[in-house]
Amino acid sequence: MTKTNLANATLFDLNTGLSNEEESVKRHLSDMKKLFHDTEALEQQLDNGDNPLIYEYYALDLPNTAGDIQYGTSIVYPGTLNGEYYMTKGHFHEILETGEVYFCLSGQGYMLMESPEGEWEIEELVPGRAVQVPPRYAHRSINTGNEPMVTFFTFRADAGHDYGSIETKGYRKLVVEKDGKPEIIDNPKWAL
Amino acid sequence: MTKTNLANATLFDLNTGLSNEEESVKRHLSDMKKLFHDTEALEQQLDNGDNPLIYEYYALDLPNTAGDIQYGTSIVYPGTLNGEYYMTKGHFHEILETGEVYFCLSGQGYMLMESPEGEWEIEELVPGRAVQVPPRYAHRSINTGNEPMVTFFTFRADAGHDYGSIETKGYRKLVVEKDGKPEIIDNPKWAL
Repeated sequence: MTKTNLANATLFDLNTGLSNEEESVKRHLSDMKKLFHDTEALEQQLDNGDNPLIYEYYALDLPNTAGDIQYGTSIVYPGTLNGEYYMTKGHFHEILETGEVYFCLSGQGYMLMESPEGEWEIEELVPGRAVQVPPRYAHRSINTGNEPMVTFFTFRADAGHDYGSIETKGYRKLVVEKDGKPEIIDNPKWAL
Repeated sequence: MTKTNLANATLFDLNTGLSNEEESVKRHLSDMKKLFHDTEALEQQLDNGDNPLIYEYYALDLPNTAGDIQYGTSIVYPGTLNGEYYMTKGHFHEILETGEVYFCLSGQGYMLMESPEGEWEIEELVPGRAVQVPPRYAHRSINTGNEPMVTFFTFRADAGHDYGSIETKGYRKLVVEKDGKPEIIDNPKWAL
């Protein structure tokens, strides 16, 4: 009966989503240049010296076989850029046929998903709601509320992240504020 | 741009761990006959008409390919049977080389893990702590506190559950209360 040391564990703050044990990956407005729809407003805000933290998440150094499950938290801060809600970049998986689960701990918003062929889905995120992103679908978290939106995510540890096509072409759909409420619109720039 | 309907979502209560949208699987003391160490005390309690709910969890009807992630919550209630803390049965995966992630939402206790060869591990569960169970390791949640211990779990959706060997032989290690504190002991019945 040998005691091994293969299990991994991380303590997160259930309120903030942050961990004192690990360093988060931080995405500021300047990291999102091609992702927000209004690139002019983005550049002007940066020129004014205003480069807010849009979101942060944990990319932990964990075993990454096809049998391991990778985990972490993601925190999307509240705000809009000319009406478009703060959001994550969104990503496909390198192994396209793998999905992901997001479990919302606080805040409110949406999980916006789309396939390479342009099929799309959206699911609401509210505290306690688990969303299973299907394989093949890119996924982006969008904070439509007034407080940080915290999710706990897990995916097959060998899945890998593919940001490329989203950074080039964006998403086909956007979630913007209209009359104080979220509305899904077509991305006018997507076809360009 | 077709809207599809492949994503799945479930709302859980973050305090109780329960969902109004789904039916949980319930395990009472009578379902745990071979699992608690003191089988005499167990039978006597049942003879007295006392058959408490030990734990419940969600086994949701979700896509189960190797690329999907299955999710649910587990709630282990507080209590002991002649000093042995309430716990789940514990299980291996049918696809042995797959792991699991447990994320503790409330309560406190342990994740006890052991391999078919008898290597073992234990990790503490406290609110906000995520534990990555390594592939090949059976895993059991044990509530050592005074309130329900709630976890959110995810695993590769094709992993499958294998309870057989644990129901026959039990775990090699047990967690019991000694002087009001949890202590890990060898299971005296395991070799029998």
